[in-house]
Amino acid sequence: MQEIAIEHIVQELANIRESALQQRQRLSQPPKLPSRKALGQCVEWLAAALFPNRLGDPDIQANAINFYVGTTLDKALRELQHQIRLELAFKSPSEPINQFRTQAHNFTAQFSEQLPHIRLQLDTDLEAAYQGDPAADSVDEILVSYPGILALIHYRIAHVLHGLGLTIIARLMTEIAHSQTGIDIHPGAQIGDHFFIDHGTGVVIGETAIIGSHVRLYQAVTLGAKNFPKDANGHLVKKFERHPILEDHVVVYAGATILGRITIGKHSIIGGNVWVTRSVPANSHVTQAHSDAKPIPVAA
Amino acid sequence: MQEIAIEHIVQELANIRESALQQRQRLSQPPKLPSRKALGQCVEWLAAALFPNRLGDPDIQANAINFYVGTTLDKALRELQHQIRLELAFKSPSEPINQFRTQAHNFTAQFSEQLPHIRLQLDTDLEAAYQGDPAADSVDEILVSYPGILALIHYRIAHVLHGLGLTIIARLMTEIAHSQTGIDIHPGAQIGDHFFIDHGTGVVIGETAIIGSHVRLYQAVTLGAKNFPKDANGHLVKKFERHPILEDHVVVYAGATILGRITIGKHSIIGGNVWVTRSVPANSHVTQAHSDAKPIPVAA
Amino acid sequence: MQEIAIEHIVQELANIRESALQQRQRLSQPPKLPSRKALGQCVEWLAAALFPNRLGDPDIQANAINFYVGTTLDKALRELQHQIRLELAFKSPSEPINQFRTQAHNFTAQFSEQLPHIRLQLDTDLEAAYQGDPAADSVDEILVSYPGILALIHYRIAHVLHGLGLTIIARLMTEIAHSQTGIDIHPGAQIGDHFFIDHGTGVVIGETAIIGSHVRLYQAVTLGAKNFPKDANGHLVKKFERHPILEDHVVVYAGATILGRITIGKHSIIGGNVWVTRSVPANSHVTQAHSDAKPIPVAA
Amino acid sequence: MQEIAIEHIVQELANIRESALQQRQRLSQPPKLPSRKALGQCVEWLAAALFPNRLGDPDIQANAINFYVGTTLDKALRELQHQIRLELAFKSPSEPINQFRTQAHNFTAQFSEQLPHIRLQLDTDLEAAYQGDPAADSVDEILVSYPGILALIHYRIAHVLHGLGLTIIARLMTEIAHSQTGIDIHPGAQIGDHFFIDHGTGVVIGETAIIGSHVRLYQAVTLGAKNFPKDANGHLVKKFERHPILEDHVVVYAGATILGRITIGKHSIIGGNVWVTRSVPANSHVTQAHSDAKPIPVAA
Amino acid sequence: MQEIAIEHIVQELANIRESALQQRQRLSQPPKLPSRKALGQCVEWLAAALFPNRLGDPDIQANAINFYVGTTLDKALRELQHQIRLELAFKSPSEPINQFRTQAHNFTAQFSEQLPHIRLQLDTDLEAAYQGDPAADSVDEILVSYPGILALIHYRIAHVLHGLGLTIIARLMTEIAHSQTGIDIHPGAQIGDHFFIDHGTGVVIGETAIIGSHVRLYQAVTLGAKNFPKDANGHLVKKFERHPILEDHVVVYAGATILGRITIGKHSIIGGNVWVTRSVPANSHVTQAHSDAKPIPVAA
Amino acid sequence: MQEIAIEHIVQELANIRESALQQRQRLSQPPKLPSRKALGQCVEWLAAALFPNRLGDPDIQANAINFYVGTTLDKALRELQHQIRLELAFKSPSEPINQFRTQAHNFTAQFSEQLPHIRLQLDTDLEAAYQGDPAADSVDEILVSYPGILALIHYRIAHVLHGLGLTIIARLMTEIAHSQTGIDIHPGAQIGDHFFIDHGTGVVIGETAIIGSHVRLYQAVTLGAKNFPKDANGHLVKKFERHPILEDHVVVYAGATILGRITIGKHSIIGGNVWVTRSVPANSHVTQAHSDAKPIPVAA
Repeated sequence: MQEIAIEHIVQELANIRESALQQRQRLSQPPKLPSRKALGQCVEWLAAALFPNRLGDPDIQANAINFYVGTTLDKALRELQHQIRLELAFKSPSEPINQFRTQAHNFTAQFSEQLPHIRLQLDTDLEAAYQGDPAADSVDEILVSYPGILALIHYRIAHVLHGLGLTIIARLMTEIAHSQTGIDIHPGAQIGDHFFIDHGTGVVIGETAIIGSHVRLYQAVTLGAKNFPKDANGHLVKKFERHPILEDHVVVYAGATILGRITIGKHSIIGGNVWVTRSVPANSHVTQAHSDAKPIPVAA
Repeated sequence: MQEIAIEHIVQELANIRESALQQRQRLSQPPKLPSRKALGQCVEWLAAALFPNRLGDPDIQANAINFYVGTTLDKALRELQHQIRLELAFKSPSEPINQFRTQAHNFTAQFSEQLPHIRLQLDTDLEAAYQGDPAADSVDEILVSYPGILALIHYRIAHVLHGLGLTIIARLMTEIAHSQTGIDIHPGAQIGDHFFIDHGTGVVIGETAIIGSHVRLYQAVTLGAKNFPKDANGHLVKKFERHPILEDHVVVYAGATILGRITIGKHSIIGGNVWVTRSVPANSHVTQAHSDAKPIPVAA
Repeated sequence: MQEIAIEHIVQELANIRESALQQRQRLSQPPKLPSRKALGQCVEWLAAALFPNRLGDPDIQANAINFYVGTTLDKALRELQHQIRLELAFKSPSEPINQFRTQAHNFTAQFSEQLPHIRLQLDTDLEAAYQGDPAADSVDEILVSYPGILALIHYRIAHVLHGLGLTIIARLMTEIAHSQTGIDIHPGAQIGDHFFIDHGTGVVIGETAIIGSHVRLYQAVTLGAKNFPKDANGHLVKKFERHPILEDHVVVYAGATILGRITIGKHSIIGGNVWVTRSVPANSHVTQAHSDAKPIPVAA
Repeated sequence: MQEIAIEHIVQELANIRESALQQRQRLSQPPKLPSRKALGQCVEWLAAALFPNRLGDPDIQANAINFYVGTTLDKALRELQHQIRLELAFKSPSEPINQFRTQAHNFTAQFSEQLPHIRLQLDTDLEAAYQGDPAADSVDEILVSYPGILALIHYRIAHVLHGLGLTIIARLMTEIAHSQTGIDIHPGAQIGDHFFIDHGTGVVIGETAIIGSHVRLYQAVTLGAKNFPKDANGHLVKKFERHPILEDHVVVYAGATILGRITIGKHSIIGGNVWVTRSVPANSHVTQAHSDAKPIPVAA
Repeated sequence: MQEIAIEHIVQELANIRESALQQRQRLSQPPKLPSRKALGQCVEWLAAALFPNRLGDPDIQANAINFYVGTTLDKALRELQHQIRLELAFKSPSEPINQFRTQAHNFTAQFSEQLPHIRLQLDTDLEAAYQGDPAADSVDEILVSYPGILALIHYRIAHVLHGLGLTIIARLMTEIAHSQTGIDIHPGAQIGDHFFIDHGTGVVIGETAIIGSHVRLYQAVTLGAKNFPKDANGHLVKKFERHPILEDHVVVYAGATILGRITIGKHSIIGGNVWVTRSVPANSHVTQAHSDAKPIPVAA
Repeated sequence: MQEIAIEHIVQELANIRESALQQRQRLSQPPKLPSRKALGQCVEWLAAALFPNRLGDPDIQANAINFYVGTTLDKALRELQHQIRLELAFKSPSEPINQFRTQAHNFTAQFSEQLPHIRLQLDTDLEAAYQGDPAADSVDEILVSYPGILALIHYRIAHVLHGLGLTIIARLMTEIAHSQTGIDIHPGAQIGDHFFIDHGTGVVIGETAIIGSHVRLYQAVTLGAKNFPKDANGHLVKKFERHPILEDHVVVYAGATILGRITIGKHSIIGGNVWVTRSVPANSHVTQAHSDAKPIPVAA
């Protein structure tokens, strides 16, 4: 039998790690990143605190509900504060981790003040889903079963954290939702109230997109960048405004692709599978020129 | 350090919950919903009872297999009965929960009688996958690895429950599959035998779609509604027939979008990325007019 | 109350299983398949051994890292060897399982030797993601959060196993990634270094596709087969070369569909939502003829 | 190979169950008992509510502690109420379970009112342990490490439930402590404050024992019944007063056995391994007549 | 800071293991032992199959009970067979493990045939507990709460396995009960029906003890060996008959010690804390000469 | 129905906590204690590192064993270091926790150096068990099944920590073993090599006991303090030498009680149930004067 040379493989992998660190001019013991698993738990707790009966403990008694919300918040915010400290330390690896304690505490406090606002926004999103889907019977069902709502819970929490500069945590949170729903919303995007995504698989909303209120998207809609300019050194230019603006009451049907820093005027409708790279005035209806292909009889 | 004012946030969230309940004219202690997690377990048990060696306990001995099926069914049906009672109570919150016991029992009994039929249908779906995919080596591999089959197991179980009026449970079950596979089949859709979805991510099949037998779909196919009429009060009209009918032996390639209550005649082929909103006679082949764009040399 | 006739259903299901086995001329006790759950654990351990700080134990101390890699490899390779034995036995059910022990050991040894190479390839993929995404801040973040990387870790491991003829294990591994990311890469596909998939939901890469180095794909790109020829008996011909070849430095934007054994020449760019079924010379830019539909004002 | 005849064994076991039910003139589907596992969880939650920092969540923040206590109490009392309903139904199997709902609720309410008193008693027990053990450094350590305290937490909770007539639940709770500590206190025993059991393994305190305040016991002390009178039919007479009374400030050293309804007067000391079956006046010191055996040289 | 020299400690421990193996003239890779954890699970499953409603799944429905018993037996016997193979291989390390497969299968079959008998014996033990304890209210409560019954379930299963020569498995099973109950019964002991151990902590029953039917023991009773003769080489002689025989209807009160191959005649009563090393005729009552020490007033 | 007044109980419990803190003049947020659960895990890891095949991963391959030991040590020592920091902080609550980091690190390093010595000592204990128990077949069985060995693993680890002043951690570790085995060894006791405890339930070894090498104890042996002198304020004097010294080769049979700072000379034998409070010269055999009580015929 052929030998399984574990020692040898371990040594080869160690050599590769070593040279990778040298190449990136990195410390031999790189700082920890925030933990995807811990952040997943954190969002679950925050969602439970926001909607205790539906996303928390359904058996909770009426006179214990505030106790439950308080306990769950306490767990969620402690964990979040710990993860924030890790992100701060990761981004400034040369400074001692303890000095980030106060900063992490303050970020956590600022985030926590936004929770009532996040709940109010999500209530508008639930309302929009109920109004927008002929198959929906009640707001409660939407809350527990619609992937669009799951994605928005993650996004609305992550967006507040992204606004505080906690970009890694924010991204990990929206990627958790991406994995569960197929909906990929960058936490940097700005999204108004009464937002509804139906079905949702394949939706992509880019980092600098701006979406008004009462907007509705269907599956496989992309709000993307048109091109990726490079700087003098041939590197991609990062972080500039490159995604579309959708004004209030815009509807975008399945598979439509909207690219670049263009504006879709309010109350416009973008048809399915349409490709849009130029701005559209308000109250427009954009559809494919020849929306239906001709059927050709199959040869017998 | 800034204070994290948990008591204050708890109180604010309580106020929001209170006013949300008032707005919806709801009871202060809303009835429980069926549990997504419990229903996920339930479908796993039912799948294990249907395919004990492949989706249940692979180490089970031949002379214990019926014991295993019986035990697993018992667990699955007890849990299902409990979830059905919750759905019945949720929909009639003013009646006492105990009167739903008999009704839940009877629904469970009716559902359980359909299990052999569900198994037979899934066997035809497995056969269709084996016949339809050049990459498939055996029916067994398909059962354990193809997302289309996972989605159909959930759908075929959920569809029977939807037919009994248990719409919330049915929807939760298909959403579980949606999250795992990216395939979104509404439990109300009617789907014949020998159905095959390849790859599957992004497939959407709407509530009133009707699909014949021996139909094959590829990834990102939408069988959707064309428009959403509103009633006199400006509310969406719910539950009317608005999705396509696919007759027997239809094939729909990746990314095609078929919208509205139209009929795709039997043995027709709908090409990839095609957009169809009008009925198509039998034996048609629908493709894009100019299927290939022209390549333009990139400027040096 | 209606009876829930468990004994009766168990018997019916047993009858169906019996006749299904007869139909497929199968043994009454079919051989076991490799376990999806065990393989999921196996890939997690391998990923942890490849990237111990980021995908393994973030708290590990510097002087314990090689111990960790060795232990994790040992667990992963033991499990893999067991699963390989199952696949070998499944494919030759009439031979006694013990004779596969040596063969499974040798396959495991051959696979293990490729691990350093796999790590080096993944390092190029990480580099490509960092270079290719304006939103990316560091290689570390990409490793823990990008679905494209998760899919590639599964693919690159599975591809080596596929090359050893372990097709079931390989397929189960890539389906695990498909479920988590919406990216469906067949383990038989050949993919060069510096490969980057952005967003990724809905990407499908077929069994015989060949992808050069420095290639970049966006969400919902299909590299598929154009048609499925049947043999004289009306059965699909299996395993022939039917998917595209993408040469080095090709970029394919979101929603593009490339079908058949065609070649996209190096440095070409395929635009979003484009449908390509003919070969394209090097340095081409393929876009939709009329990329933007006309906006029509909505009637008041 | 010899057959493993599972069907045959199952049938034999079914026959035995059947005849056992007939012998005991029992229903074919006997009522459920309270669950040992659920009650173990219940006591853990109650202990966490009583001592939130030490036996609950040590990381809890000061401003969240009351939330934590409320949530934990809510979970504990809901579970307890469910278990009480099971005990009530078990004891009156012919009545419908729903009528026990109110009764179970009321018992739970009565029990919950005693929780502050239980905490106060346990504080005196902790104080007694600290005063009584030369090896003890702090009250906190005692709370988390002394088996005597673990046994008393279970006993003091169980005793209140025993007083409400919930004898099965009470007994299960003290048996959980018995298993973990080797200390077997019947929940019917009456025990005053400042009670301390050191080491504890093998201590047995019978159903009708009465223990004053400031009493101290060491390991392997038995407070038992002397004999078991039978009634006219030869059956044991149940539930009569048959265990000792220990007045305040009594100390009983390791291995002493005190049997029958006798009284050990206050401030008495019972020496190790002593056997006592007659009452002892206050302020007595009872030791073995010849406490030390003679050493005999071992023959070379 | 002082270095934590993990590599160095690992090397030192490796050296110690190496020299320990050399000293015992052992193979470098010693054969595996049966697993304590797996055997604990195995006994739990067997107990559930023997008493499905009380020790298995209390929610099981009447028409599913035989399915449950069959499934649980199947799991238990498969695991047991695997553990038996390990014990056989451990005891004959030079032979290949596969040849033990048939032998393990046969032992499992022989064991399984004893299960109905084990259930019948345990029914007599339950009856004895009910008759023997004034505090017992029902047989059901005894089954779920009495440590003596838990110990007997483990002992009666282990004793059958011990009789088949599977001494390691048998010992591990009774040690599991010892840890949970403080009752230490060697699986080689022979114990008749209607056996009752009350309280039980500290009971020790030696390897060659023989106990008739209708025997009752209280806590801390030892049925031990009197002395340990050595052979010519100064090693202890192993496995000879060295523990007491208790005939039918004997009662032994708490703390009594009975040592050596002596016989306690039927219907005898051995008092608490008594030390017995000589045989006792039938119908005797053995008590301490001066059972009560004199109380001495404590000096003021 | 009676109200369950959770808010009221929470408030009462808060008041009690408040007044308890005031009484003990304690901080409002008391420092954390080391965690019993974490320390249980820690000892399991250390035991696995000491005996990797038997108490670690039995499936580990020969060429991976040192990797396993290193990884397991790393996990164990990291956790231990964290727990040590908690104990240091608990004992000096007014100092900031970060200053204990270096001290905890150094204690962990000192402890880790003792691990090879601990392994060597435990090897002598295993040898003594094998030599001392006629029922033992192999050293391996003893390691996995004897409670005495489990207790000694915990004690020998805890004793080293106790020697470093880490009394809380040490005590928690031995209490974990106490709960599992009924053997209560204070970590401060000094115990030589080749130590064997048979059966073990009820053994108590006090804080200042000193035990030579080649000593053997049976179940329910107490090595205790004779009396507890009080200081001028009526408080117990703590920590003075108050437990027995057992010289080399002493054997103490079941139930014997040895109290006070006395010396049992080497090669002495203390008989079962004997009570010893005075020193005994070497080579003595101490038994009860009248070891056997007279049997009295039971009246007909």
